[in-house]
Amino acid sequence: MTTNASPIDTKAVNVIKGLIMDTVRASNSGHPGGAMSSADYAYVLFKEFLSFDPKDAKWFNRDRFVLSAGHESALLYALLTLQGNLGVEDLKAFRQFGSKTPGHPEHDMTDGVEATTGPLGQGFAMAGGMAVAEAFLREYLDAESAGHFTYVLVSDGDVQEPICLGSAALFGQWGLGRLIAYYDSNKIQLAGPTCRVDNIDHKALFESMRWQVIEIDGHDHEQIRKAILAGQAETSKPTLIIGHTTMAKGCATLEGSESTHGSPLPEAEIKATKIKLGLPDEEFHLPDDVLDTFRSRFAALRNGRQAWDKALAAKLADSAFAAKWENATTPACQRSLNWPEFESGAGVATRKAFGACLGAMMEQLPTLMGGSADLDPSNQTVKFRETVGIFNATTNALGRNLCFGVREFPMGAILNGLALHGGIVPFGATFLVFSDYERNAIRMSALQHLPVLHVFTHDSFFVGEDGPTHQPIEHVSSLRLIPNLLVLRPADARESAACMAVALKQKSRPSVLIFTRQGLPVLELPQPLEEHVGKGAYVVRDPEGAAPEMLLLASGSEVHLAVEAAEACSELKIRVVSVPSMELFDEQSAEYREAVMPRSITRRVAIEAGRTDLWYKYVGLDGKVWGINHFGASAPAGVLKEKYGFTTANLIKFIRE
Amino acid sequence: MTTNASPIDTKAVNVIKGLIMDTVRASNSGHPGGAMSSADYAYVLFKEFLSFDPKDAKWFNRDRFVLSAGHESALLYALLTLQGNLGVEDLKAFRQFGSKTPGHPEHDMTDGVEATTGPLGQGFAMAGGMAVAEAFLREYLDAESAGHFTYVLVSDGDVQEPICLGSAALFGQWGLGRLIAYYDSNKIQLAGPTCRVDNIDHKALFESMRWQVIEIDGHDHEQIRKAILAGQAETSKPTLIIGHTTMAKGCATLEGSESTHGSPLPEAEIKATKIKLGLPDEEFHLPDDVLDTFRSRFAALRNGRQAWDKALAAKLADSAFAAKWENATTPACQRSLNWPEFESGAGVATRKAFGACLGAMMEQLPTLMGGSADLDPSNQTVKFRETVGIFNATTNALGRNLCFGVREFPMGAILNGLALHGGIVPFGATFLVFSDYERNAIRMSALQHLPVLHVFTHDSFFVGEDGPTHQPIEHVSSLRLIPNLLVLRPADARESAACMAVALKQKSRPSVLIFTRQGLPVLELPQPLEEHVGKGAYVVRDPEGAAPEMLLLASGSEVHLAVEAAEACSELKIRVVSVPSMELFDEQSAEYREAVMPRSITRRVAIEAGRTDLWYKYVGLDGKVWGINHFGASAPAGVLKEKYGFTTANLIKFIRE
Repeated sequence: MTTNASPIDTKAVNVIKGLIMDTVRASNSGHPGGAMSSADYAYVLFKEFLSFDPKDAKWFNRDRFVLSAGHESALLYALLTLQGNLGVEDLKAFRQFGSKTPGHPEHDMTDGVEATTGPLGQGFAMAGGMAVAEAFLREYLDAESAGHFTYVLVSDGDVQEPICLGSAALFGQWGLGRLIAYYDSNKIQLAGPTCRVDNIDHKALFESMRWQVIEIDGHDHEQIRKAILAGQAETSKPTLIIGHTTMAKGCATLEGSESTHGSPLPEAEIKATKIKLGLPDEEFHLPDDVLDTFRSRFAALRNGRQAWDKALAAKLADSAFAAKWENATTPACQRSLNWPEFESGAGVATRKAFGACLGAMMEQLPTLMGGSADLDPSNQTVKFRETVGIFNATTNALGRNLCFGVREFPMGAILNGLALHGGIVPFGATFLVFSDYERNAIRMSALQHLPVLHVFTHDSFFVGEDGPTHQPIEHVSSLRLIPNLLVLRPADARESAACMAVALKQKSRPSVLIFTRQGLPVLELPQPLEEHVGKGAYVVRDPEGAAPEMLLLASGSEVHLAVEAAEACSELKIRVVSVPSMELFDEQSAEYREAVMPRSITRRVAIEAGRTDLWYKYVGLDGKVWGINHFGASAPAGVLKEKYGFTTANLIKFIRE
Repeated sequence: MTTNASPIDTKAVNVIKGLIMDTVRASNSGHPGGAMSSADYAYVLFKEFLSFDPKDAKWFNRDRFVLSAGHESALLYALLTLQGNLGVEDLKAFRQFGSKTPGHPEHDMTDGVEATTGPLGQGFAMAGGMAVAEAFLREYLDAESAGHFTYVLVSDGDVQEPICLGSAALFGQWGLGRLIAYYDSNKIQLAGPTCRVDNIDHKALFESMRWQVIEIDGHDHEQIRKAILAGQAETSKPTLIIGHTTMAKGCATLEGSESTHGSPLPEAEIKATKIKLGLPDEEFHLPDDVLDTFRSRFAALRNGRQAWDKALAAKLADSAFAAKWENATTPACQRSLNWPEFESGAGVATRKAFGACLGAMMEQLPTLMGGSADLDPSNQTVKFRETVGIFNATTNALGRNLCFGVREFPMGAILNGLALHGGIVPFGATFLVFSDYERNAIRMSALQHLPVLHVFTHDSFFVGEDGPTHQPIEHVSSLRLIPNLLVLRPADARESAACMAVALKQKSRPSVLIFTRQGLPVLELPQPLEEHVGKGAYVVRDPEGAAPEMLLLASGSEVHLAVEAAEACSELKIRVVSVPSMELFDEQSAEYREAVMPRSITRRVAIEAGRTDLWYKYVGLDGKVWGINHFGASAPAGVLKEKYGFTTANLIKFIRE
């Protein structure tokens, strides 16, 4: 049972456990066991330490709390009910359509939920991203305006996920002194005890990664308090508090049982547990004394917020501070940026065009942060790194380059954390083929409506010598299938700048920006180009003095081939359409789509250096697609170009057939 | 420089470095720096320790060596040249189309290459999978028939990849005493020194995961020898040898420079380095004394192989051993299995049908190994675990259940290692949405032609209450885009068994098996069902006494809806086609495809509880697809079914429109 706690705190924890049991029972699905084992820590944190504004869940300088173990949502919802962000009615609607209490926390559905969690390990990584944002802004503004703590609660399953360990290495390296993680080590997971799957010495593990590690009895409130204070006191290392706990702590007969992990407790167990915990035999019992105790800090919290407002108002009189404040609070989508220009004709790899665009963004977006998963020269991020410096919370918090190492999945989730915190424009880069390694983080950008820039270079078999392990085939199309995600594959340097502009205009969705390794001619494209690109597909070339009789669709490095082929086959009266983004095109009006791809034109060909399948939605059963549906090979790109028929001559032959 | 080495060994290492420099220079692309820093260890291992048959690279009981740092392929190719698997001509064809020396090692192109590597971290995980197979077979057969070591060489980038750490936790837990990893810690990677991205105490890290860790000077041959011997002596823990080395060791002026990571050395540097190393000014210098020294063990190795053959022949006289030997050497695709039967009508979740199939496989495939990423009850693998026991190399090597914990990516790559080793039928399971976490391992199954069974349950928004983080939308279609991968989504329990049968018949490609959480009616399907399913799509129902005038295509949980709708709209004369596998259908003859989906029928509708895009290749511009192109929501599955219109009534309405 709870130890070293006052009677009212003990009662409050028991009331929370009652709410957890009732909430999960009401929906007849959910995860009570871990929620109950974590209740002591979460209660102490929320009641005594977490800094927030009870009236404004979005206050800029609130502490962040991330429930990485998203399946323990019933615990978070109980605490948010004590906070006043939710009501008991919401708990009763747990896991129902449209409720504020979905099965796993969703940050844009519920005040007080800082991140959408459930896919294990990513909440931990996102919390670290938030701590990076905080450390940068604390230095960029000042500690009073933007200095707070980031707390994250992880479970056994979180710590097993490789992304957690890869992220922990970075957070130790980055000296995130204001990141305080609590590991609820109840040693029971869905399928049984954790000793089946590892016997890690977690203290030694995290210490090897430069963390402060404190082991406590996770049901002892005094130990919890001391550990949080020690975490706050250590300013140059992140802190991991390992709470040794009992699964389903407090249950009448099922403490320690994995049966409590993923299912409601049986009615009889709930009844017996309520008796054991001294709770009345009623559902959703929430007595006033518990509420009053929990809210005893609210007046002080509100005063804190008011003082912060006042101090901010005073500082805003200083124009230098005011400019920084505006930089930190104006979303990128509200800014107008100048983009580099490129000369016609010259061969420019679109990754190089991205590099030039990154230079422009670096100058114009003072809170742009990001980096590469150790492919800086290939991804064209070296100049960025050298100009803005390498981030370290302790030694160089204004450094805006994040050196991720070869850690794509941590990178993706950390970018999501930066975006969730706010104030930062985040980007990250690697090879397109390794988007596989971070795929679910990209999905989580999309699900959370975060305007993250996911940059991928080396976008097809044109990668060449590195061979099939490094040559994307399916990736462009498979990313297009993720909902609420823009996939942009520009045709040349100019479309690259336009795609960057379009991506930065997004309020609530991430963009995947896909660039070539190889050089491409810079094309004469219709103006205003950004507007055309913003519609996803547009006419690049029409037959002279005649109505088009054939559509030739292409994206990226194949657009110039399409133009060349159309010019060589003038008798076929070919319209060439550049398709930088299928998603944008699909959301245009029926009129626009008809204007670009008239239904009357049934002769249709598409070309893309990737899987063909998706293009049939534009070319139909009578159309043809030139692509590649098998793995590539290790050879110079020019050789593969011939072998795989991505030449003008072959395209002409294909069209004429 | 190389220390504590005989003059001829020093010379041999220098010759290898010369070959590395020349090989990379010849193709004008590649990675010399890491290959040179690892050369001392790899030379000592190959020359003095690795057990192999110089005449038969596929010998069953050879030691396995995996170059996880696949970009260091020039080192491996140099050693394989000393071994005789390659010739100097192959080195000259480095990274050329069709050569045996592709940019990253590809296991099916080159004798002596045990795994396709390059995507970092996965080689390490695959090596552990090989060590699992070895430990099981050593116990199942005997230590003489199947007892060998697995060696793996990892780089800084490998160790940064989260999958490496997640896998290391498992290998420590599993007590893989015959796994010996060498970490070439040269502290320089593509984008710069590793101190930018972490300052991990790797010895403490791996020790926290129950590894034996030995730190050495990686250029000191005596220390290398002692460390390998210590690794061999430790039988209950895997061993990590951390070799502290210098990037591009031996270079005239570029030792320690990241410029040597990913590009050929400049001509002048090669020239100066050859002078420094005492090599003549010629390309691909490979003197006889070095070859003779390297091959001085060959006679003994061949004798060892002959003795093994003789002992095996003697043991095969014992029928019990002979039966086991056959089990361990007959690929699953050559076996005929009996599959469970299901009664018509009853609602059976296809994941339960998988569970029943797993029971049948468990009985009939004595070397079936696998497990779940901690979703045993959800994935229906509990009975398997309880029957076959949990694997541990030291304490229960005959246990065939691998408890992965919540580690999908390690799971996927370990399965690949099991398949690469041979003798094992590997499977692994998790929720479909978390296929994202292991996506590149699935790709690597496909690229390596490995018949791994990747099982995914909970295949659509019908997951229900767990919400959008757990509801696949894009996954079925995005997996279909991976080349050389079968994606099978069965319509009911009977198709599930047929899909399992089809998957097990694959010689050289992996299968993704996709099952529902929810119950589905067991349908009356045409016989022989396995044959129909093997063609990817087949007619389930035709209008009575009339030619079909409309095609209704469906997969998985939507097939019964299609049948119900077709029956309700008899006036529309609907043919229902079940499409368990697009890949299989697409590879059928034009005649078969025309017979199932005649071009004359232009009224076409498809339905699938996922992204619509891919279905247009079958329904065309005039067709319609009922699917879901947005994220799901947390609610009971029955509610979502109504909200998203996956009801017979709505499908009828949609068809009639």
